[in-house]
Amino acid sequence: MRRMVSLQNEKVKLWKKLKIRKWRDREQKYLLEGPHLVQEAVFSARERVNTILIDEGFHLPADWPLDSIEVFQVTHKIFTELSETETPQGIIAVCDMSRASVKLRPGRYLLVDGVQDPGNLGTLIRTADAFGLDAVFLGDGCVDGHNAKTLRSAQGSHFHLPVIHHNLFSLANEMKELAIPLYGSSLQGNELHQASVSSPYYGLVVGNEGNGASPELLAEMDLQVKIPMAGRAESLNVAVATGILLYWLQAEGLA
Amino acid sequence: MRRMVSLQNEKVKLWKKLKIRKWRDREQKYLLEGPHLVQEAVFSARERVNTILIDEGFHLPADWPLDSIEVFQVTHKIFTELSETETPQGIIAVCDMSRASVKLRPGRYLLVDGVQDPGNLGTLIRTADAFGLDAVFLGDGCVDGHNAKTLRSAQGSHFHLPVIHHNLFSLANEMKELAIPLYGSSLQGNELHQASVSSPYYGLVVGNEGNGASPELLAEMDLQVKIPMAGRAESLNVAVATGILLYWLQAEGLA
Repeated sequence: MRRMVSLQNEKVKLWKKLKIRKWRDREQKYLLEGPHLVQEAVFSARERVNTILIDEGFHLPADWPLDSIEVFQVTHKIFTELSETETPQGIIAVCDMSRASVKLRPGRYLLVDGVQDPGNLGTLIRTADAFGLDAVFLGDGCVDGHNAKTLRSAQGSHFHLPVIHHNLFSLANEMKELAIPLYGSSLQGNELHQASVSSPYYGLVVGNEGNGASPELLAEMDLQVKIPMAGRAESLNVAVATGILLYWLQAEGLA
Repeated sequence: MRRMVSLQNEKVKLWKKLKIRKWRDREQKYLLEGPHLVQEAVFSARERVNTILIDEGFHLPADWPLDSIEVFQVTHKIFTELSETETPQGIIAVCDMSRASVKLRPGRYLLVDGVQDPGNLGTLIRTADAFGLDAVFLGDGCVDGHNAKTLRSAQGSHFHLPVIHHNLFSLANEMKELAIPLYGSSLQGNELHQASVSSPYYGLVVGNEGNGASPELLAEMDLQVKIPMAGRAESLNVAVATGILLYWLQAEGLA
Protein backbone atom coordinates (compact mmCIF):
# COMPACT_ATOMS: atom_id res chain seq x y z
CA MET A 1 0.00 0.00 0.00
CA ARG A 2 1.41 3.34 -1.03
CA ARG A 3 0.61 6.68 0.54
CA MET A 4 -0.15 9.71 -1.63
CA VAL A 5 0.30 13.16 -0.19
CA SER A 6 0.23 15.70 -2.99
CA LEU A 7 -2.82 16.99 -4.83
CA GLN A 8 -0.44 17.71 -7.71
CA ASN A 9 0.43 14.05 -8.15
CA GLU A 10 -0.41 12.91 -11.70
CA LYS A 11 -2.50 9.99 -10.50
CA VAL A 12 -4.53 12.18 -8.18
CA LYS A 13 -5.12 14.64 -11.02
CA LEU A 14 -6.44 11.85 -13.23
CA TRP A 15 -8.73 10.52 -10.50
CA LYS A 16 -10.15 13.99 -9.94
CA LYS A 17 -10.92 14.29 -13.65
CA LEU A 18 -13.06 11.15 -13.41
CA LYS A 19 -15.67 13.21 -11.58
CA ILE A 20 -16.48 14.69 -15.01
CA ARG A 21 -18.36 12.67 -17.61
CA LYS A 22 -16.16 13.74 -20.54
CA TRP A 23 -13.11 12.28 -18.79
CA ARG A 24 -14.92 9.12 -17.75
CA ASP A 25 -15.85 8.54 -21.39
CA ARG A 26 -12.33 9.26 -22.59
CA GLU A 27 -10.60 7.08 -20.00
CA GLN A 28 -13.36 4.45 -19.84
CA LYS A 29 -12.96 4.58 -16.07
CA TYR A 30 -15.09 5.86 -13.20
CA LEU A 31 -15.07 6.33 -9.43
CA LEU A 32 -17.10 4.02 -7.21
CA GLU A 33 -17.61 5.18 -3.65
CA GLY A 34 -18.42 3.55 -0.34
CA PRO A 35 -17.62 0.18 1.28
CA HIS A 36 -20.83 -1.56 0.18
CA LEU A 37 -20.40 -0.80 -3.54
CA VAL A 38 -16.64 -1.41 -3.55
CA GLN A 39 -17.15 -4.76 -1.82
CA GLU A 40 -19.69 -5.77 -4.46
CA ALA A 41 -17.21 -4.78 -7.20
CA VAL A 42 -14.31 -6.63 -5.60
CA PHE A 43 -16.32 -9.83 -5.15
CA SER A 44 -18.40 -9.75 -8.35
CA ALA A 45 -16.12 -8.15 -10.93
CA ARG A 46 -12.61 -7.88 -9.53
CA GLU A 47 -11.10 -7.64 -13.01
CA ARG A 48 -12.79 -4.28 -13.41
CA VAL A 49 -11.38 -2.80 -10.21
CA ASN A 50 -8.26 -0.92 -11.16
CA THR A 51 -7.22 0.87 -8.01
CA ILE A 52 -8.58 1.32 -4.48
CA LEU A 53 -8.15 4.58 -2.59
CA ILE A 54 -8.64 4.73 1.14
CA ASP A 55 -8.90 7.66 3.49
CA GLU A 56 -6.73 8.02 6.58
CA GLY A 57 -8.05 5.70 9.27
CA PHE A 58 -10.02 3.40 6.96
CA HIS A 59 -9.25 -0.29 7.42
CA LEU A 60 -9.68 -2.63 4.48
CA PRO A 61 -11.47 -5.84 5.44
CA ALA A 62 -8.90 -8.64 5.60
CA ASP A 63 -11.01 -11.08 3.58
CA TRP A 64 -11.29 -9.00 0.39
CA PRO A 65 -9.48 -10.64 -2.56
CA LEU A 66 -7.25 -7.73 -3.61
CA ASP A 67 -4.36 -9.64 -5.32
CA SER A 68 -4.14 -7.70 -8.55
CA ILE A 69 -5.53 -4.41 -7.27
CA GLU A 70 -3.36 -1.39 -6.42
CA VAL A 71 -4.26 0.17 -3.09
CA PHE A 72 -3.32 3.73 -2.12
CA GLN A 73 -3.91 5.47 1.14
CA VAL A 74 -4.48 9.15 0.43
CA THR A 75 -4.55 12.11 2.78
CA HIS A 76 -7.93 13.14 4.14
CA LYS A 77 -7.70 16.33 2.08
CA ILE A 78 -7.24 14.39 -1.16
CA PHE A 79 -9.98 11.94 -0.23
CA THR A 80 -12.42 14.76 0.38
CA GLU A 81 -11.56 16.27 -3.00
CA LEU A 82 -12.31 12.99 -4.73
CA SER A 83 -15.48 12.13 -2.80
CA GLU A 84 -18.90 13.01 -4.18
CA THR A 85 -20.95 12.23 -1.09
CA GLU A 86 -21.92 14.45 1.80
CA THR A 87 -20.66 11.96 4.38
CA PRO A 88 -17.69 10.14 2.79
CA GLN A 89 -17.18 6.62 4.06
CA GLY A 90 -13.47 6.25 3.49
CA ILE A 91 -13.13 4.19 0.33
CA ILE A 92 -13.26 4.81 -3.42
CA ALA A 93 -12.44 2.38 -6.23
CA VAL A 94 -11.28 3.40 -9.69
CA CYS A 95 -13.11 0.98 -11.98
CA ASP A 96 -12.93 0.16 -15.69
CA MET A 97 -16.19 0.47 -17.58
CA SER A 98 -17.64 -2.81 -18.71
CA ARG A 99 -16.00 -3.87 -21.97
CA ALA A 100 -18.77 -6.35 -22.59
CA SER A 101 -19.24 -6.84 -26.29
CA VAL A 102 -22.44 -5.35 -27.64
CA LYS A 103 -22.73 -8.32 -30.00
CA LEU A 104 -26.37 -9.17 -29.52
CA ARG A 105 -27.75 -12.63 -29.02
CA PRO A 106 -31.35 -13.57 -28.31
CA GLY A 107 -31.95 -12.30 -24.79
CA ARG A 108 -33.78 -9.79 -22.65
CA TYR A 109 -32.68 -6.18 -22.78
CA LEU A 110 -33.66 -2.82 -21.35
CA LEU A 111 -33.29 0.18 -23.68
CA VAL A 112 -33.29 3.49 -21.84
CA ASP A 113 -34.24 6.46 -24.00
CA GLY A 114 -33.42 9.90 -22.63
CA VAL A 115 -33.81 9.34 -18.88
CA GLN A 116 -32.48 12.49 -17.19
CA ASP A 117 -32.42 11.79 -13.48
CA PRO A 118 -29.32 9.88 -12.30
CA GLY A 119 -31.22 8.32 -9.37
CA ASN A 120 -33.98 7.09 -11.67
CA LEU A 121 -31.38 5.60 -14.01
CA GLY A 122 -29.69 3.73 -11.16
CA THR A 123 -33.03 2.36 -9.99
CA LEU A 124 -33.75 1.22 -13.57
CA ILE A 125 -30.43 -0.66 -13.69
CA ARG A 126 -31.13 -2.26 -10.30
CA THR A 127 -34.61 -3.29 -11.47
CA ALA A 128 -33.28 -4.80 -14.72
CA ASP A 129 -30.76 -6.75 -12.64
CA ALA A 130 -33.46 -8.00 -10.24
CA PHE A 131 -35.42 -9.43 -13.18
CA GLY A 132 -32.32 -11.08 -14.63
CA LEU A 133 -32.02 -9.07 -17.85
CA ASP A 134 -28.96 -9.55 -20.04
CA ALA A 135 -27.93 -5.92 -20.48
CA VAL A 136 -29.04 -2.30 -20.14
CA PHE A 137 -28.45 0.00 -23.12
CA LEU A 138 -28.45 3.76 -22.63
CA GLY A 139 -29.42 5.91 -25.61
CA ASP A 140 -27.62 9.06 -26.72
CA GLY A 141 -29.79 11.50 -24.76
CA CYS A 142 -29.49 9.57 -21.49
CA VAL A 143 -27.73 10.76 -18.35
CA ASP A 144 -24.34 9.07 -17.78
CA GLY A 145 -24.58 5.49 -16.54
CA HIS A 146 -21.49 5.97 -14.35
CA ASN A 147 -22.60 9.12 -12.57
CA ALA A 148 -21.99 8.85 -8.80
CA LYS A 149 -25.73 9.06 -8.02
CA THR A 150 -26.56 6.45 -10.64
CA LEU A 151 -23.97 4.06 -9.20
CA ARG A 152 -25.34 4.63 -5.71
CA SER A 153 -28.98 3.96 -6.53
CA ALA A 154 -28.04 0.94 -8.69
CA GLN A 155 -26.56 -0.64 -5.51
CA GLY A 156 -23.91 -2.71 -7.30
CA SER A 157 -25.99 -3.94 -10.23
CA HIS A 158 -23.36 -2.52 -12.62
CA PHE A 159 -21.30 -5.58 -11.65
CA HIS A 160 -24.09 -8.03 -12.44
CA LEU A 161 -24.99 -7.00 -15.97
CA PRO A 162 -23.46 -4.83 -18.72
CA VAL A 163 -24.49 -1.16 -18.75
CA ILE A 164 -23.59 0.25 -22.15
CA HIS A 165 -24.09 3.57 -23.93
CA HIS A 166 -25.23 2.73 -27.46
CA ASN A 167 -27.33 4.25 -30.23
CA LEU A 168 -30.82 2.82 -29.75
CA PHE A 169 -31.87 2.97 -33.42
CA SER A 170 -29.00 0.84 -34.63
CA LEU A 171 -29.73 -1.49 -31.74
CA ALA A 172 -33.40 -1.71 -32.74
CA ASN A 173 -32.29 -2.71 -36.23
CA GLU A 174 -29.92 -5.35 -34.91
CA MET A 175 -32.77 -6.71 -32.80
CA LYS A 176 -35.05 -6.94 -35.82
CA GLU A 177 -32.44 -9.03 -37.62
CA LEU A 178 -32.33 -11.42 -34.66
CA ALA A 179 -36.14 -11.48 -34.41
CA ILE A 180 -36.02 -10.04 -30.89
CA PRO A 181 -39.31 -8.15 -30.49
CA LEU A 182 -39.26 -4.55 -29.29
CA TYR A 183 -41.82 -3.49 -26.66
CA GLY A 184 -42.52 -0.17 -25.09
CA SER A 185 -45.13 1.82 -23.24
CA SER A 186 -47.18 4.64 -24.68
CA LEU A 187 -50.54 6.24 -23.99
CA GLN A 188 -51.78 4.73 -27.27
CA GLY A 189 -50.78 1.20 -26.23
CA ASN A 190 -52.99 -1.72 -25.26
CA GLU A 191 -53.69 -2.05 -21.56
CA LEU A 192 -51.50 -4.77 -20.07
CA HIS A 193 -54.33 -7.20 -19.30
CA GLN A 194 -55.42 -7.00 -22.96
CA ALA A 195 -51.94 -7.58 -24.35
CA SER A 196 -49.88 -10.75 -24.58
CA VAL A 197 -46.43 -11.65 -25.77
CA SER A 198 -45.03 -14.98 -26.92
CA SER A 199 -41.26 -14.58 -27.32
CA PRO A 200 -39.15 -15.25 -24.21
CA TYR A 201 -36.77 -12.59 -25.55
CA TYR A 202 -37.38 -8.89 -25.91
CA GLY A 203 -36.03 -5.38 -25.89
CA LEU A 204 -38.11 -3.19 -23.56
CA VAL A 205 -37.83 0.53 -24.34
CA VAL A 206 -38.46 2.97 -21.52
CA GLY A 207 -38.45 6.68 -22.08
CA ASN A 208 -37.80 10.13 -20.78
CA GLU A 209 -39.50 11.14 -17.50
CA GLY A 210 -41.65 13.81 -19.14
CA ASN A 211 -42.21 12.65 -22.68
CA GLY A 212 -41.77 8.88 -22.78
CA ALA A 213 -39.88 7.19 -25.59
CA SER A 214 -39.16 9.20 -28.74
CA PRO A 215 -41.70 8.86 -31.61
CA GLU A 216 -38.96 7.48 -33.89
CA LEU A 217 -38.35 4.58 -31.51
CA LEU A 218 -42.07 4.04 -30.87
CA ALA A 219 -42.46 3.56 -34.64
CA GLU A 220 -40.03 0.63 -34.48
CA MET A 221 -41.96 -1.23 -31.81
CA ASP A 222 -43.66 -4.56 -32.22
CA LEU A 223 -46.01 -3.87 -29.33
CA GLN A 224 -47.01 -0.77 -27.40
CA VAL A 225 -48.64 -1.27 -24.02
CA LYS A 226 -49.86 0.90 -21.20
CA ILE A 227 -50.29 0.27 -17.50
CA PRO A 228 -53.94 0.67 -16.49
CA MET A 229 -54.25 3.26 -13.72
CA ALA A 230 -57.45 3.98 -11.85
CA GLY A 231 -56.25 7.05 -10.00
CA ARG A 232 -55.49 10.71 -10.58
CA ALA A 233 -51.69 10.86 -10.90
CA GLU A 234 -50.86 11.68 -14.51
CA SER A 235 -48.14 9.10 -14.73
CA LEU A 236 -45.89 6.76 -12.81
CA ASN A 237 -42.23 7.30 -12.01
CA VAL A 238 -40.22 5.77 -14.88
CA ALA A 239 -38.52 3.17 -12.64
CA VAL A 240 -41.84 2.14 -11.08
CA ALA A 241 -43.42 1.78 -14.54
CA THR A 242 -40.43 -0.27 -15.72
CA GLY A 243 -40.68 -2.57 -12.70
CA ILE A 244 -44.34 -3.24 -13.50
CA LEU A 245 -43.58 -3.91 -17.18
CA LEU A 246 -40.72 -6.28 -16.35
CA TYR A 247 -42.89 -8.08 -13.81
CA TRP A 248 -45.65 -8.39 -16.42
CA LEU A 249 -43.21 -9.72 -19.04
CA GLN A 250 -41.88 -12.23 -16.53
CA ALA A 251 -45.42 -13.36 -15.62
CA GLU A 252 -46.30 -13.67 -19.34
CA GLY A 253 -43.27 -15.92 -19.71
CA LEU A 254 -44.52 -18.15 -16.88
CA ALA A 255 -48.09 -18.29 -18.17
CA MET B 1 -51.05 41.73 -3.01
CA ARG B 2 -48.83 42.96 -0.19
CA ARG B 3 -45.09 43.35 -0.31
CA MET B 4 -42.90 42.05 2.53
CA VAL B 5 -39.48 43.51 3.04
CA SER B 6 -38.18 42.50 6.44
CA LEU B 7 -36.78 39.13 7.48
CA GLN B 8 -37.86 40.07 11.00
CA ASN B 9 -41.52 40.19 10.07
CA GLU B 10 -43.52 37.76 12.19
CA LYS B 11 -45.09 36.09 9.18
CA VAL B 12 -41.72 35.56 7.51
CA LYS B 13 -40.36 34.08 10.74
CA LEU B 14 -43.23 31.59 10.86
CA TRP B 15 -42.79 30.59 7.22
CA LYS B 16 -39.07 30.00 7.80
CA LYS B 17 -39.89 27.70 10.71
CA LEU B 18 -41.96 25.53 8.39
CA LYS B 19 -38.71 24.27 6.87
CA ILE B 20 -38.36 22.23 10.08
CA ARG B 21 -40.50 19.15 10.70
CA LYS B 22 -41.22 19.95 14.35
CA TRP B 23 -42.80 23.25 13.32
CA ARG B 24 -44.73 21.73 10.44
CA ASP B 25 -46.24 19.21 12.85
CA ARG B 26 -47.03 21.89 15.41
CA GLU B 27 -48.59 24.32 12.92
CA GLN B 28 -50.07 21.62 10.66
CA LYS B 29 -48.76 23.64 7.74
CA TYR B 30 -45.99 23.18 5.17
CA LEU B 31 -44.26 24.92 2.27
CA LEU B 32 -44.93 23.81 -1.29
CA GLU B 33 -42.51 25.08 -3.89
CA GLY B 34 -42.56 25.63 -7.64
CA PRO B 35 -45.24 26.64 -10.17
CA HIS B 36 -46.23 23.09 -11.15
CA LEU B 37 -46.97 21.92 -7.60
CA VAL B 38 -48.64 25.18 -6.53
CA GLN B 39 -50.86 25.09 -9.63
CA GLU B 40 -51.92 21.54 -8.77
CA ALA B 41 -52.74 22.65 -5.20
CA VAL B 42 -54.68 25.72 -6.33
CA PHE B 43 -56.77 23.75 -8.81
CA SER B 44 -57.21 20.48 -6.85
CA ALA B 45 -57.35 21.58 -3.22
CA ARG B 46 -57.67 25.34 -3.03
CA GLU B 47 -59.13 25.19 0.47
CA ARG B 48 -55.77 23.90 1.68
CA VAL B 49 -53.74 26.76 0.21
CA ASN B 50 -53.32 29.33 2.91
CA THR B 51 -50.93 31.87 1.45
CA ILE B 52 -48.90 32.27 -1.73
CA LEU B 53 -45.46 33.88 -1.71
CA ILE B 54 -43.89 35.11 -4.90
CA ASP B 55 -40.38 36.27 -5.65
CA GLU B 56 -39.61 39.62 -7.28
CA GLY B 57 -40.34 39.37 -10.99
CA PHE B 58 -42.61 36.30 -10.78
CA HIS B 59 -45.97 36.76 -12.52
CA LEU B 60 -48.96 34.77 -11.26
CA PRO B 61 -50.95 33.22 -14.12
CA ALA B 62 -54.13 35.23 -14.58
CA ASP B 63 -56.38 32.17 -14.73
CA TRP B 64 -55.57 30.77 -11.29
CA PRO B 65 -58.59 30.89 -8.93
CA LEU B 66 -57.03 32.75 -6.00
CA ASP B 67 -60.16 34.36 -4.44
CA SER B 68 -59.66 33.36 -0.82
CA ILE B 69 -55.86 33.06 -0.90
CA GLU B 70 -53.54 35.73 0.51
CA VAL B 71 -50.70 36.58 -1.88
CA PHE B 72 -47.48 38.27 -0.78
CA GLN B 73 -44.61 39.41 -2.91
CA VAL B 74 -41.43 39.02 -0.89
CA THR B 75 -37.96 40.37 -1.58
CA HIS B 76 -35.58 38.10 -3.42
CA LYS B 77 -33.52 37.78 -0.24
CA ILE B 78 -36.52 36.51 1.74
CA PHE B 79 -37.57 34.20 -1.06
CA THR B 80 -34.11 32.64 -1.18
CA GLU B 81 -34.21 32.10 2.59
CA LEU B 82 -37.51 30.25 2.29
CA SER B 83 -36.66 28.20 -0.76
CA GLU B 84 -35.36 24.64 -0.46
CA THR B 85 -34.37 24.10 -4.09
CA GLU B 86 -31.09 24.78 -5.84
CA THR B 87 -32.77 26.75 -8.61
CA PRO B 88 -35.83 28.46 -7.06
CA GLN B 89 -38.68 29.03 -9.48
CA GLY B 90 -40.27 32.05 -7.87
CA ILE B 91 -43.32 30.70 -6.05
CA ILE B 92 -44.03 29.00 -2.72
CA ALA B 93 -47.42 28.18 -1.20
CA VAL B 94 -48.06 27.82 2.53
CA CYS B 95 -50.48 24.89 2.72
CA ASP B 96 -52.56 23.31 5.46
CA MET B 97 -51.99 19.63 6.04
CA SER B 98 -54.88 17.44 5.02
CA ARG B 99 -57.46 17.32 7.82
CA ALA B 100 -59.04 14.27 6.26
CA SER B 101 -60.60 12.17 8.95
CA VAL B 102 -58.80 8.93 9.67
CA LYS B 103 -62.16 7.25 10.19
CA LEU B 104 -61.70 4.12 8.16
CA ARG B 105 -64.19 2.68 5.74
CA PRO B 106 -63.73 -0.32 3.50
CA GLY B 107 -61.22 0.84 0.92
CA ARG B 108 -57.68 0.46 -0.37
CA TYR B 109 -54.84 1.83 1.70
CA LEU B 110 -51.06 1.99 1.64
CA LEU B 111 -49.31 1.68 5.01
CA VAL B 112 -45.72 2.89 4.94
CA ASP B 113 -43.55 1.47 7.71
CA GLY B 114 -40.24 3.22 8.35
CA VAL B 115 -39.32 4.44 4.87
CA GLN B 116 -36.32 6.75 5.31
CA ASP B 117 -35.68 8.35 1.94
CA PRO B 118 -37.89 11.40 1.20
CA GLY B 119 -37.69 10.81 -2.56
CA ASN B 120 -38.79 7.19 -2.15
CA LEU B 121 -41.69 8.29 0.04
CA GLY B 122 -42.85 10.83 -2.55
CA THR B 123 -42.70 8.19 -5.29
CA LEU B 124 -44.74 5.84 -3.07
CA ILE B 125 -47.43 8.50 -2.62
CA ARG B 126 -47.46 9.19 -6.38
CA THR B 127 -47.77 5.44 -7.09
CA ALA B 128 -50.63 5.01 -4.59
CA ASP B 129 -52.39 7.93 -6.29
CA ALA B 130 -51.86 6.42 -9.77
CA PHE B 131 -53.58 3.22 -8.64
CA GLY B 132 -56.47 5.13 -7.09
CA LEU B 133 -55.90 4.23 -3.44
CA ASP B 134 -57.99 5.92 -0.76
CA ALA B 135 -55.21 7.10 1.56
CA VAL B 136 -51.55 6.71 2.47
CA PHE B 137 -50.70 6.20 6.15
CA LEU B 138 -47.18 6.89 7.39
CA GLY B 139 -46.00 4.98 10.47
CA ASP B 140 -44.13 6.47 13.39
CA GLY B 141 -40.64 5.71 12.07
CA CYS B 142 -41.29 7.18 8.65
CA VAL B 143 -39.66 10.27 7.16
CA ASP B 144 -41.97 13.32 7.12
CA GLY B 145 -44.66 13.20 4.45
CA HIS B 146 -44.39 16.98 3.94
CA ASN B 147 -40.64 17.16 3.46
CA ALA B 148 -39.75 19.33 0.41
CA LYS B 149 -38.20 16.37 -1.44
CA THR B 150 -41.20 14.16 -0.70
CA LEU B 151 -43.58 16.81 -2.03
CA ARG B 152 -41.45 17.19 -5.16
CA SER B 153 -41.26 13.51 -6.04
CA ALA B 154 -44.97 13.03 -5.25
CA GLN B 155 -45.72 15.56 -8.04
CA GLY B 156 -48.95 16.87 -6.56
CA SER B 157 -50.45 13.58 -5.40
CA HIS B 158 -50.79 15.04 -1.89
CA PHE B 159 -53.79 16.94 -3.31
CA HIS B 160 -55.42 13.81 -4.69
CA LEU B 161 -55.47 11.57 -1.63
CA PRO B 162 -54.95 11.98 2.12
CA VAL B 163 -51.38 11.51 3.40
CA ILE B 164 -51.57 10.98 7.15
CA HIS B 165 -49.09 10.17 9.90
CA HIS B 166 -50.72 7.51 12.07
CA ASN B 167 -49.72 4.60 14.29
CA LEU B 168 -49.79 1.53 12.06
CA PHE B 169 -50.62 -1.00 14.81
CA SER B 170 -53.78 0.77 15.86
CA LEU B 171 -54.63 1.10 12.19
CA ALA B 172 -54.09 -2.64 11.65
CA ASN B 173 -56.53 -3.29 14.49
CA GLU B 174 -59.14 -0.94 13.07
CA MET B 175 -58.76 -2.71 9.74
CA LYS B 176 -59.34 -6.11 11.34
CA GLU B 177 -62.59 -4.83 12.81
CA LEU B 178 -63.72 -3.73 9.36
CA ALA B 179 -62.56 -7.02 7.79
CA ILE B 180 -60.09 -5.18 5.55
CA PRO B 181 -57.31 -7.70 4.92
CA LEU B 182 -53.70 -6.68 5.50
CA TYR B 183 -51.09 -7.66 2.91
CA GLY B 184 -47.36 -7.18 2.80
CA SER B 185 -44.20 -8.47 1.25
CA SER B 186 -41.59 -10.57 2.96
CA LEU B 187 -38.94 -13.06 1.93
CA GLN B 188 -41.07 -15.78 3.55
CA GLY B 189 -44.13 -14.89 1.48
CA ASN B 190 -45.76 -16.77 -1.39
CA GLU B 191 -44.56 -15.81 -4.83
CA LEU B 192 -47.12 -13.56 -6.49
CA HIS B 193 -48.17 -16.04 -9.16
CA GLN B 194 -48.94 -18.57 -6.43
CA ALA B 195 -50.96 -16.16 -4.33
CA SER B 196 -54.45 -14.84 -4.79
CA VAL B 197 -56.70 -12.40 -3.02
CA SER B 198 -60.45 -12.04 -3.03
CA SER B 199 -61.35 -8.84 -1.23
CA PRO B 200 -61.51 -5.68 -3.35
CA TYR B 201 -60.31 -3.81 -0.25
CA TYR B 202 -56.95 -4.05 1.47
CA GLY B 203 -54.21 -2.42 3.44
CA LEU B 204 -50.84 -2.95 1.76
CA VAL B 205 -47.89 -2.61 4.13
CA VAL B 206 -44.54 -1.64 2.64
CA GLY B 207 -41.43 -1.42 4.74
CA ASN B 208 -38.10 0.16 5.39
CA GLU B 209 -35.57 0.22 2.51
CA GLY B 210 -33.12 -2.09 4.28
CA ASN B 211 -35.22 -4.29 6.52
CA GLY B 212 -38.75 -4.39 5.10
CA ALA B 213 -41.78 -4.16 7.35
CA SER B 214 -41.29 -4.66 11.10
CA PRO B 215 -41.84 -8.21 12.45
CA GLU B 216 -44.67 -6.95 14.68
CA LEU B 217 -46.60 -5.72 11.67
CA LEU B 218 -45.78 -8.82 9.61
CA ALA B 219 -47.38 -10.87 12.38
CA GLU B 220 -50.66 -9.01 11.82
CA MET B 221 -50.82 -9.78 8.11
CA ASP B 222 -53.44 -11.88 6.41
CA LEU B 223 -51.12 -12.63 3.50
CA GLN B 224 -47.40 -12.29 2.90
CA VAL B 225 -46.21 -12.31 -0.68
CA LYS B 226 -42.94 -11.89 -2.50
CA ILE B 227 -42.09 -10.71 -5.99
CA PRO B 228 -40.30 -13.47 -7.91
CA MET B 229 -36.96 -12.21 -9.19
CA ALA B 230 -34.74 -14.17 -11.54
CA GLY B 231 -31.70 -11.92 -11.30
CA ARG B 232 -28.87 -11.05 -8.95
CA ALA B 233 -29.96 -7.80 -7.32
CA GLU B 234 -30.73 -8.53 -3.67
CA SER B 235 -33.91 -6.51 -3.67
CA LEU B 236 -35.99 -3.96 -5.50
CA ASN B 237 -36.29 -0.29 -4.64
CA VAL B 238 -39.25 0.06 -2.23
CA ALA B 239 -41.28 2.23 -4.64
CA VAL B 240 -40.67 -0.16 -7.55
CA ALA B 241 -41.74 -3.13 -5.39
CA THR B 242 -44.84 -1.23 -4.26
CA GLY B 243 -45.76 -0.42 -7.87
CA ILE B 244 -45.57 -4.11 -8.76
CA LEU B 245 -47.67 -5.13 -5.74
CA LEU B 246 -50.34 -2.51 -6.47
CA TYR B 247 -50.41 -3.55 -10.13
CA TRP B 248 -50.78 -7.18 -9.05
CA LEU B 249 -53.59 -6.33 -6.61
CA GLN B 250 -55.37 -4.36 -9.34
CA ALA B 251 -54.98 -7.24 -11.82
CA GLU B 252 -56.29 -9.70 -9.19
CA GLY B 253 -59.31 -7.44 -8.80
CA LEU B 254 -59.97 -7.60 -12.56
CA ALA B 255 -59.47 -11.36 -12.81
